[in-house]
Amino acid sequence: MNLFRNATDSGKESPDNATIDQISHFDQKTVTLRGWVSSIRSSGKIAFLQLRDGTGIIQCVGSIQDIGEEKFEKLKSSTLETAVLVSGEVKKDTRSKIGFEIGLKDFEIVSRPLEEYPIGKKEHGVAFLMEQRHLWLRSSRQVAILRIRSEIIRAIRDYFDGRGFYLMDSPILTPNSCEGTSTLFETPYFDDKAYLTQSGQLYGEASAMALGKIYVFGPTFRAEKSKTRRHLTEFWMVEPEVAFMDINGDMDLAEDFIEYIVQRTIKNRRAELEILERDLTPLERVKKPFPRILYSEAVDILNKNNKPAKFGDDFGGDEETVISQQFDRPVMIHHYPKAIKAFYMKENDKDPTLVNCVDVIAPEGYGEIIGGSQREDDMEKIKARIKEHGLSEDAFKWYLDLRRFGSVPHAGFGLGLERTVAWITGVPHVRETIPFPRLMEKIFP
Amino acid sequence: MNLFRNATDSGKESPDNATIDQISHFDQKTVTLRGWVSSIRSSGKIAFLQLRDGTGIIQCVGSIQDIGEEKFEKLKSSTLETAVLVSGEVKKDTRSKIGFEIGLKDFEIVSRPLEEYPIGKKEHGVAFLMEQRHLWLRSSRQVAILRIRSEIIRAIRDYFDGRGFYLMDSPILTPNSCEGTSTLFETPYFDDKAYLTQSGQLYGEASAMALGKIYVFGPTFRAEKSKTRRHLTEFWMVEPEVAFMDINGDMDLAEDFIEYIVQRTIKNRRAELEILERDLTPLERVKKPFPRILYSEAVDILNKNNKPAKFGDDFGGDEETVISQQFDRPVMIHHYPKAIKAFYMKENDKDPTLVNCVDVIAPEGYGEIIGGSQREDDMEKIKARIKEHGLSEDAFKWYLDLRRFGSVPHAGFGLGLERTVAWITGVPHVRETIPFPRLMEKIFP
Repeated sequence: MNLFRNATDSGKESPDNATIDQISHFDQKTVTLRGWVSSIRSSGKIAFLQLRDGTGIIQCVGSIQDIGEEKFEKLKSSTLETAVLVSGEVKKDTRSKIGFEIGLKDFEIVSRPLEEYPIGKKEHGVAFLMEQRHLWLRSSRQVAILRIRSEIIRAIRDYFDGRGFYLMDSPILTPNSCEGTSTLFETPYFDDKAYLTQSGQLYGEASAMALGKIYVFGPTFRAEKSKTRRHLTEFWMVEPEVAFMDINGDMDLAEDFIEYIVQRTIKNRRAELEILERDLTPLERVKKPFPRILYSEAVDILNKNNKPAKFGDDFGGDEETVISQQFDRPVMIHHYPKAIKAFYMKENDKDPTLVNCVDVIAPEGYGEIIGGSQREDDMEKIKARIKEHGLSEDAFKWYLDLRRFGSVPHAGFGLGLERTVAWITGVPHVRETIPFPRLMEKIFP
Repeated sequence: MNLFRNATDSGKESPDNATIDQISHFDQKTVTLRGWVSSIRSSGKIAFLQLRDGTGIIQCVGSIQDIGEEKFEKLKSSTLETAVLVSGEVKKDTRSKIGFEIGLKDFEIVSRPLEEYPIGKKEHGVAFLMEQRHLWLRSSRQVAILRIRSEIIRAIRDYFDGRGFYLMDSPILTPNSCEGTSTLFETPYFDDKAYLTQSGQLYGEASAMALGKIYVFGPTFRAEKSKTRRHLTEFWMVEPEVAFMDINGDMDLAEDFIEYIVQRTIKNRRAELEILERDLTPLERVKKPFPRILYSEAVDILNKNNKPAKFGDDFGGDEETVISQQFDRPVMIHHYPKAIKAFYMKENDKDPTLVNCVDVIAPEGYGEIIGGSQREDDMEKIKARIKEHGLSEDAFKWYLDLRRFGSVPHAGFGLGLERTVAWITGVPHVRETIPFPRLMEKIFP
């Protein structure tokens, strides 16, 4: 048995280099697997090892007869998270979730835990598990969530890459506190100061004027003092931006994009969704067209459902949930009052009290996953908005250049990755949707 | 002519929604294009517009006869970066670089520049262009570089995604100053402090113990006071990490990976490499196997080439260039002295003065693009190294847990994205390889 794997192949080329997720390629063959003990039990001369290798879990059955007394003793005595190297025959097994088990022929211990593994089979509190995040990641549930996260990120990239969008990274370190510093992380920058970005959009607009269709995809930061199940201080956001697109095109894009990532994830990550016991029915319904309602219609819905609201109110999580419950798929709320939205959103031609914007609310109470808008492309109007918002025109000089030279209608949106992962996986709190979550009171490990 | 595009298709489905890079799909058809004036000249009753749309540049030929006097006057009088909407017939043209031109049938101005566009045809200094980065991005050269960057990022992701690696984002905000604070950006974090990550590796190791084969891909930060053509304060790094891999597997992976991204970029981005006048010969040679030399052999090479060196010296840019000039493809230098390398690198079994590490040096003077190593998996040895380096064991408690519970041999590397883009595109300075570069004295726009 070779301790080392060849990482340049996919785990289905060679039985010496197999991984559990590819085990069906090796039916009746002898494979070598590398991993950790997830559980062990023995009964007389036979032992049942649940082996995890990061790609899945498989039962390995070992007997004194097949591996000899010495190795059988080692097998029996191995404990949780013992690192092991095993070799054996892949056998079909209808009782197994993955359809196969391993008949052990050889077994070696790579390393034994130096202490008892702190995460046992018993229930642990979340505070404890968060302190042990570096180990908690190894649990089946966390592995399933994070594999789905990885798939959603691939889906996002494939969607845009396949439609002529170019990835254009916006900077993380930014010079201006565009909208007040209260929720910004600030760092000394040599003799100056810098702020961690809250959104790549403004830079994305400059990139769209250069490359036409672009997307920004990177970490963003909010130093918000909120402790809810929907907030992280560090989270990833994907932000497409398209030259020559209006708010209707923006809604078409958001809808097509969400359908793609949800349907692809169901298709490619069904096993992981099953581990999480995710009800797939509401996800299977996420197909175009999505309902599109005016902000004013959303206000009516609230009033009809015992949530008094009036024109000019912004919606919180409770309101979003009430509205989303009226529909069986994501709902797009468009044309909000100008007064409650960001300065860069385009004033509506017919009703200047509104802006051409859209929020997409996920079903099942997962809240807003997309905020988007057509951008104000008129120089005089955007200057006036900057003034109204009490912002410094000087700080936006380069941004105004995009209206000064070759201004065109353009639009885009931002999708919050972790909320999307929470929704698709069905986990209640965003803290489980990123490998190392950062929250207001949590920056360890 | 419809001003707006449909961003959900790829630009080759519909002639009303065409893009220049897909123009060959519409030979002899009438298309609508949306873009900006890159240059214009006229001669009597005929005008030649070079139109850029972010995906390419195409010549559009317009005459009074075809578009009428009024539109012809508008066409003739349009200036650099005027936003326009055009419609016309796609015609084969052998003199054109892209093989086609447009016979204009219709022309509209979307917006005229409010002032003269600051970047003209004349030469500008780099300092000026850097101040205008948001506009400089529109030049053919910058578009070509950034399209290649986008392709390299796709290639990196496709390489790992196709081989069973999971993307696992490491955090940007980190609690400890693991290796001294002198080159770290620091930010207040509520009642605490946080530092911007310099590498996702340590967290990547935790992720590899959970998922087997993973990669981290995100921005990293160094507050280094160096002004060289190879340094940015904010740059992107991709860091694969593999459980059950040793230094030899690590070198195999690095070699296979580099060959893949270089050969794929040549194949998919030939037009852009031609715009940059990149000599493809040295890139075409980037095929396995790469030369692998011991650190001690590298010292010999330096001494033979009038660069006196001795065991224990670290190599700077000049030394890297001398070594790389001895070979016709990237060179892998392995097994450096332990004393000059990071605490987490695995001590060599046969010679404890060395560590199992590798640096990959790009050809043509582009310097180190990969630094990698097998990681120390022995608890007592890594504790001793932490002590030797004057680091706090307490700060590494969670990291040591990876040795405490299920320790296995593991290895990985980090590839710097911007240096790789500089090498492949052949641009001399990394500042052009990222949309909005951050340097010691540069955080605008």
